[in-house]
Amino acid sequence: MLAVTILGNNSALPAFDRHPTAQIITMNENHFLVDCGEGTQSQMAKYKIRRSKITHIFISHLHGDHYFGLIGLLTSMGLLGRQLDIHLFAPAPLKEMIDMQLHVADTKLPFPLHFHPLGEEGLLVKDNKFDISCFRVRHRIECWGFKFDEIKAPRKVNPDKAREHGVPASFFERLKWGEDYLNSENELIKNELVTNSGTIPKSYAYSADTIYEESIAEKVKNVSLLYHEATYLKDLHQRAASRFHCTTIEAAQIAKLANVQKLIIGHFSSKYERLDDFEKEAREVFENTELAIEGVTYRV
Amino acid sequence: MLAVTILGNNSALPAFDRHPTAQIITMNENHFLVDCGEGTQSQMAKYKIRRSKITHIFISHLHGDHYFGLIGLLTSMGLLGRQLDIHLFAPAPLKEMIDMQLHVADTKLPFPLHFHPLGEEGLLVKDNKFDISCFRVRHRIECWGFKFDEIKAPRKVNPDKAREHGVPASFFERLKWGEDYLNSENELIKNELVTNSGTIPKSYAYSADTIYEESIAEKVKNVSLLYHEATYLKDLHQRAASRFHCTTIEAAQIAKLANVQKLIIGHFSSKYERLDDFEKEAREVFENTELAIEGVTYRV
Repeated sequence: MLAVTILGNNSALPAFDRHPTAQIITMNENHFLVDCGEGTQSQMAKYKIRRSKITHIFISHLHGDHYFGLIGLLTSMGLLGRQLDIHLFAPAPLKEMIDMQLHVADTKLPFPLHFHPLGEEGLLVKDNKFDISCFRVRHRIECWGFKFDEIKAPRKVNPDKAREHGVPASFFERLKWGEDYLNSENELIKNELVTNSGTIPKSYAYSADTIYEESIAEKVKNVSLLYHEATYLKDLHQRAASRFHCTTIEAAQIAKLANVQKLIIGHFSSKYERLDDFEKEAREVFENTELAIEGVTYRV
Repeated sequence: MLAVTILGNNSALPAFDRHPTAQIITMNENHFLVDCGEGTQSQMAKYKIRRSKITHIFISHLHGDHYFGLIGLLTSMGLLGRQLDIHLFAPAPLKEMIDMQLHVADTKLPFPLHFHPLGEEGLLVKDNKFDISCFRVRHRIECWGFKFDEIKAPRKVNPDKAREHGVPASFFERLKWGEDYLNSENELIKNELVTNSGTIPKSYAYSADTIYEESIAEKVKNVSLLYHEATYLKDLHQRAASRFHCTTIEAAQIAKLANVQKLIIGHFSSKYERLDDFEKEAREVFENTELAIEGVTYRV
């Protein structure tokens, strides 16, 4: 199971009861937090996200609307007596700021906080069931996107067929991962003959704050679900570029180039009260587009 | 006019839709912000407080529930193009944290932010119409209370009586401030004869987070309105003391010792959903007590 829950869909200035960026990525029983604008802990309470289930936090960049809620979340976790480790992936200077905020408050977190500074594109977390990696996007300051990939699912062994072709049960685990079997009569039993394909692995990419940058399409190629920022409607493409942000149709163009299955757009400017035109404009370029709406969970 | 608007009445962990500490003090046309927990800017929007009218900010101490919302408020003011100065009074380390947060975001505030580190008890701001001073309270870390005093109001000149006694209009301004007049016949015209008393100057004290500390009563002696924290009900007085907080009856006892006109209690622990008992217990000791309720303005 891979799903994304939007906790904040607005850009820097809170407005119209929209909040700064934060998302929960659910992969099976794991909860990952991506970005953490001011008020994220209240949004979690509102949408019944259990803080205690979050094990990894990813911060794309150090503009306040993407991290000012983090220190409050961490200290609240501490007050609640959390003991489970947290892994935090973020631009390097965040560590010093957190350390200073804890120091002046004479506070020690009761759980281990492992800080991993972002530095190179590539793998951040490797698990049996998923990989998480980061990639650079192009914003006014250093900024990172994150990609969540289910690992290729194991094939399903058909035990009757396997026995029929003389494959012993002790080889079944290797069958699951695609190996062929050489039986006692020196006959090669092709894997496909005795297994069925597993479910198709799913993937999600969060492209963070960025100017229109076609190289991002390569980095998120073929993902099942792409979140791309769309701060402005298409008529403000010059303002978007000058502030290192995108418009609706630029976001949709990246989705199209990347051949993704579905696109979510968010990070809406506070100048817009209504969001209808965001959906309409993006769909002109990429039909399978949804707006990021707070409290909504998008299943991949 | 002196009034206090509560934006947050809860202690550190947000709960039951209560928020961390923040208050707006209104003195005539001036808005002062006292403490600024996470989400204060949203609370201001909710209760129609105009950010642009705030000229002075006072931070009592560097526990997160009293300042994590400040950097977001300041950057939002910047995004809105504020140009008017802000004077910020707070424990010294806050400056370095703000500077670092602006630096990593490559952000310059478009308005002058004057940082005044708190160091000694006494006067912070002197205006024609009011004084603002600070005093130490006793918490787990360095912590400050703030006192807002209207300056003695000018007396009201009775122009008919003044003329009758030969006081020229050019002397009226001096009459306002209590001077007697020696007329051309060498006769002393007592001020009280030709003026009436002005309104009585009002005062408000915010005592911040503190353990029960009787010396505070001296520091807030005779104020019109006292805000005192009451984190716990009376049965938890040991827990209160161990965490450098107060109970209902301890807050009320300070109000009584200080001979204040009225008491507001707040900073309620997240362990309490209902607050009725806070009012009831405090009133057993000090009858004129109100609960700090978010969105409510208490006129002095």
